[in-house]
Amino acid sequence: MEHISPWGLGPLASSTTLGQEIHALAERLFPICRSITGDGVRQTLDILSGHIDLERHEVPTGTQVFDWTVPKEWDIRSASITGPDGQTVLDFADSNLHIVNYSLPFKGTLPLSELRSHIHTLPEQPQVIPYRTCYYAPTWGFCADYDRVAKMPDGLYRVEIDAELKDGSLTYGEYLHRGQTEREFLLSAHICHPSLANDNCSGLALLATLARSLEARKTRYSYRFLFAPGTIGALAWLSRNQDRTHLIDHGLVLSCVGDAGRPAYKRSRRGDAFIDRAMAHVLGRETGAKLMDFSPYGYDERQYCSPGFDLPVGMFQRSVHGTFPEYHTSADNLDFIGPEHLADSFRILMDVIEIVEEDWTPLNLFPKGEPQLGTRGLYAALGGQKSSGATSMALLWVLNLADGRHSLLAMAERSGLPFRELAAAAGLLLDHGLLADAAP
Amino acid sequence: MEHISPWGLGPLASSTTLGQEIHALAERLFPICRSITGDGVRQTLDILSGHIDLERHEVPTGTQVFDWTVPKEWDIRSASITGPDGQTVLDFADSNLHIVNYSLPFKGTLPLSELRSHIHTLPEQPQVIPYRTCYYAPTWGFCADYDRVAKMPDGLYRVEIDAELKDGSLTYGEYLHRGQTEREFLLSAHICHPSLANDNCSGLALLATLARSLEARKTRYSYRFLFAPGTIGALAWLSRNQDRTHLIDHGLVLSCVGDAGRPAYKRSRRGDAFIDRAMAHVLGRETGAKLMDFSPYGYDERQYCSPGFDLPVGMFQRSVHGTFPEYHTSADNLDFIGPEHLADSFRILMDVIEIVEEDWTPLNLFPKGEPQLGTRGLYAALGGQKSSGATSMALLWVLNLADGRHSLLAMAERSGLPFRELAAAAGLLLDHGLLADAAP
Amino acid sequence: MEHISPWGLGPLASSTTLGQEIHALAERLFPICRSITGDGVRQTLDILSGHIDLERHEVPTGTQVFDWTVPKEWDIRSASITGPDGQTVLDFADSNLHIVNYSLPFKGTLPLSELRSHIHTLPEQPQVIPYRTCYYAPTWGFCADYDRVAKMPDGLYRVEIDAELKDGSLTYGEYLHRGQTEREFLLSAHICHPSLANDNCSGLALLATLARSLEARKTRYSYRFLFAPGTIGALAWLSRNQDRTHLIDHGLVLSCVGDAGRPAYKRSRRGDAFIDRAMAHVLGRETGAKLMDFSPYGYDERQYCSPGFDLPVGMFQRSVHGTFPEYHTSADNLDFIGPEHLADSFRILMDVIEIVEEDWTPLNLFPKGEPQLGTRGLYAALGGQKSSGATSMALLWVLNLADGRHSLLAMAERSGLPFRELAAAAGLLLDHGLLADAAP
Repeated sequence: MEHISPWGLGPLASSTTLGQEIHALAERLFPICRSITGDGVRQTLDILSGHIDLERHEVPTGTQVFDWTVPKEWDIRSASITGPDGQTVLDFADSNLHIVNYSLPFKGTLPLSELRSHIHTLPEQPQVIPYRTCYYAPTWGFCADYDRVAKMPDGLYRVEIDAELKDGSLTYGEYLHRGQTEREFLLSAHICHPSLANDNCSGLALLATLARSLEARKTRYSYRFLFAPGTIGALAWLSRNQDRTHLIDHGLVLSCVGDAGRPAYKRSRRGDAFIDRAMAHVLGRETGAKLMDFSPYGYDERQYCSPGFDLPVGMFQRSVHGTFPEYHTSADNLDFIGPEHLADSFRILMDVIEIVEEDWTPLNLFPKGEPQLGTRGLYAALGGQKSSGATSMALLWVLNLADGRHSLLAMAERSGLPFRELAAAAGLLLDHGLLADAAP
Repeated sequence: MEHISPWGLGPLASSTTLGQEIHALAERLFPICRSITGDGVRQTLDILSGHIDLERHEVPTGTQVFDWTVPKEWDIRSASITGPDGQTVLDFADSNLHIVNYSLPFKGTLPLSELRSHIHTLPEQPQVIPYRTCYYAPTWGFCADYDRVAKMPDGLYRVEIDAELKDGSLTYGEYLHRGQTEREFLLSAHICHPSLANDNCSGLALLATLARSLEARKTRYSYRFLFAPGTIGALAWLSRNQDRTHLIDHGLVLSCVGDAGRPAYKRSRRGDAFIDRAMAHVLGRETGAKLMDFSPYGYDERQYCSPGFDLPVGMFQRSVHGTFPEYHTSADNLDFIGPEHLADSFRILMDVIEIVEEDWTPLNLFPKGEPQLGTRGLYAALGGQKSSGATSMALLWVLNLADGRHSLLAMAERSGLPFRELAAAAGLLLDHGLLADAAP
Repeated sequence: MEHISPWGLGPLASSTTLGQEIHALAERLFPICRSITGDGVRQTLDILSGHIDLERHEVPTGTQVFDWTVPKEWDIRSASITGPDGQTVLDFADSNLHIVNYSLPFKGTLPLSELRSHIHTLPEQPQVIPYRTCYYAPTWGFCADYDRVAKMPDGLYRVEIDAELKDGSLTYGEYLHRGQTEREFLLSAHICHPSLANDNCSGLALLATLARSLEARKTRYSYRFLFAPGTIGALAWLSRNQDRTHLIDHGLVLSCVGDAGRPAYKRSRRGDAFIDRAMAHVLGRETGAKLMDFSPYGYDERQYCSPGFDLPVGMFQRSVHGTFPEYHTSADNLDFIGPEHLADSFRILMDVIEIVEEDWTPLNLFPKGEPQLGTRGLYAALGGQKSSGATSMALLWVLNLADGRHSLLAMAERSGLPFRELAAAAGLLLDHGLLADAAP
């Protein structure tokens, strides 16, 4: 099935192919041990640069970023626990979730009783490894499946963490698709999570693919793609771009966009921004989709929607973070995300971009009564049928609401018709000289 | 049962008699073959003129009416199809629905295969004749019950349509009941449909009866009754009265007001006009009544609510057009409408007119605390009963909201009490010197 | 269980003790035969004066109070009906509900047939005595249980009512707890009902206890407690304090606060006053609580919310007056109210007072992005847990909404978090220098 973009330059790849491409990219990103700093982020940006012409930024350790300071860079080479019998109990080489992200280097021998306070498990999900971080706390720890830890015999354990916290930098990547205007649509995904497929290899791969697919298109808006570590990365970008944030008309944070859950949207802090209305319109036509009011817990919309910025940035995902058992565990692996879901998320973003690009405010040039559609071939010439087709309804709605106070999205909201149908009707009426652009 | 008008000059005819009168008038209108022009409309106005002093208007063929042109006048004398065996298969004399309204004259002999494309049927309702028009398309056609057409044998058929399209005029009728002010209540019904009882012999008969019943009454508003062909007729009236439309404070389009369905109201484009609120109040007290938002598909509210006019005109009906199987078929006959339903529609219109006439904005002359109702005989002298009667509640609501910012309708909306009860209470309080008119 | 006041000077008495204290006070008030004037009111104020330093006011008979006149003072000494056999049938000494409140003095002998029109019963509740008044009607009457009256044999009955209507005064009591500002919270309970426990010994006892518990506290608002006869008493107070009503920022009328029903609040006429929002917030967290829109029937909110005052005064109760069978009957006795319900009503009032006292509008001093809570010890240092605790959410909500346009109550409304949790979070953030007071 071809998805023909109604506003762009031609057919996209089939959605099947597209979903597979996004999944394949997520697969390449999955094994890397990322954190909020370090070479894992750089390797990730290297891979993404194979798809789009990324601009890379390095923000040195110690840089003040609003209330925060860019931390020392964390690099980890190996980490393991060896049991009393000399067997390796836990090894970072098996899963980069085994190490608490940002653990200090450590070498030592501990009795099990003392070691236990350094090992995080999920007793309710005894077979998965949790994901933990200690970015701003000087400590170390391991994560493991509860069953494995439960079986560890008493005795002395050898712990070795070959990690390094050193002056370095925080890295983020940025790609700008320039449109006809400087007004921007910001799309942002966090790049700091290690091997968690949905959260957020899915978001990174989806955004990169979306960026690439926009490359050849002429757009009205400029599209800024940001791949940055959560919180501190978004803050670093905001800090360096304070004079540009007024250009942002629309924004989305993406995360967890590859699982089988139905699409979900969390409104911006404003609640009635254009992006909120456009997402509501698109998701209003998706069975089981969820619309949620803003709350200050989640991903980097927390920063974009802080009161000093209050940007029109919402958050798009599928299963809502924190509500699915795989969240922040080793069960969030490549099997948890599917090409069909990634393709579906892509389609939804394209639908929203279509509204952002194609919305305009028509003015009816024949506002007194209805203009005669029949003689213009715009209306079935033979009247009296029981039901008028949807296209006729779209023509009538556009004409009726084209008073210069309703954009196409407002017409979609009032009529309950799909934006696309109204946009097609408005285009037809414009071609026939019945409409003008109210704000040319 | 006598329906005592609370605002007029005396009792109306009993609702039984009234319903029978309206039905009898609809019966006289039913057989006529109407169209958007022609003698059928004139005959219809002749009959209505027996009830009210109609002003008749003729708009010549070729007159420009906004984006439209008044078409040639259509008159039809006969139309028939004769089969291979010489028997008449279809005859306009049997049902004026048999001819596609505005068919060109035609004489010729066609094989069945070719003739079929000119015969409209409803396969899902094989025993009824559909209603079709071709006002603005130069063609001809017949309508028939599917079963009859299915039985037609192969062979050559003789078609004769003795119709005429000639320079002439479009005809509409108008009646103005002058009230104390020039502000108008527009009531409009389309006169162009041939033998369809509910759509719209019911509306024509109801409006004429309503107009006659207002004749002897003193009213605040002027009431304009318009009997005009759909679309082009309403546009012609608007075109000729552009300088008067600002006088229209309230308006209703009427159609399909005689069937057994529960009353339904479609709001004006404004959505919160006084007529929208008054109809919502009246229908809010009718079990099963339907309130619908404006949509630009329907009857002549499409024209009155076009963005260049945006008049406060809603649409009243019973079963919603297009949703009942009899709609636009020969099953919409005189058995489909009933005197009791016509009387019920009449009553609802009178209830709405009562609100329009009787609404006013009281000002409490004793606004600090409640005035003493008991000593004025306005309140049960013996306190402490478990429940205060509805009339007491109306007195209290009126006094409480009589701050000059609430009209009686607004009080009805907030209190949930019937408008009539509040109007009675306000009258009583006015008589006792407790209220003044906030806008005398 | 200790209820620690979050805004006051220390722990209150345990809620069990408190409920028992309020009930004990109601018990002392119960036997007195109160009316809108007379010694019953004075005795009631005497008892309340044992708890708080009441200011007592006497308004002379004949004083004009807006549209009303203070009536003659009613005092009753005895009233009885003696049967044909010389036995006492009804005796005021048994229940002060037996006499219609404000009955004229009367001595005479009547046949049963004539006497019946003077005896009020409730046939549907044949074993309870109704409560009736005739304040402004010159008549007399008795109230009795239907069963007793039904058994009265024919014959002549001796009626003796030793009552007096004389020039005197209307009495009300007032207590003002002075806060830091002159802005007032008005708490008002009617004092005119005789032996009805819920309506309103409960309200009087609750208010007196609340007043006493505020005595030692420093508050921002001044709290005015009014114990006045219904309608005429409230009007007398309004009449004498017209120049002070602009100081009233919040108000509650209390009645029927001791029964087992769930708490109920009727909004002020304004509908969106601070007190309306605060009560909605508190009751929104109580299972089965009822929120009702204003209506002009009920208690003295009728006067406070009359259009000439339109004060932000709502009404708090438990079972809604007029909806429970005990209402205005002898079944509204001391068994009908319970210490646990009185304590619960007290707690709810304290919760509302907490919001009134503690609401403020914070301004985020670090509005760009989130400030770093972890390093300040305000946030769990180890990130990545599945769910953030409620306190963390409160911190995040306060920071996000601290734009100077949201008070803590507005934050509670938007976030769905308890006011107390947000107030605690705001206090913490203020202590850490992250917030300022937007309106210091």
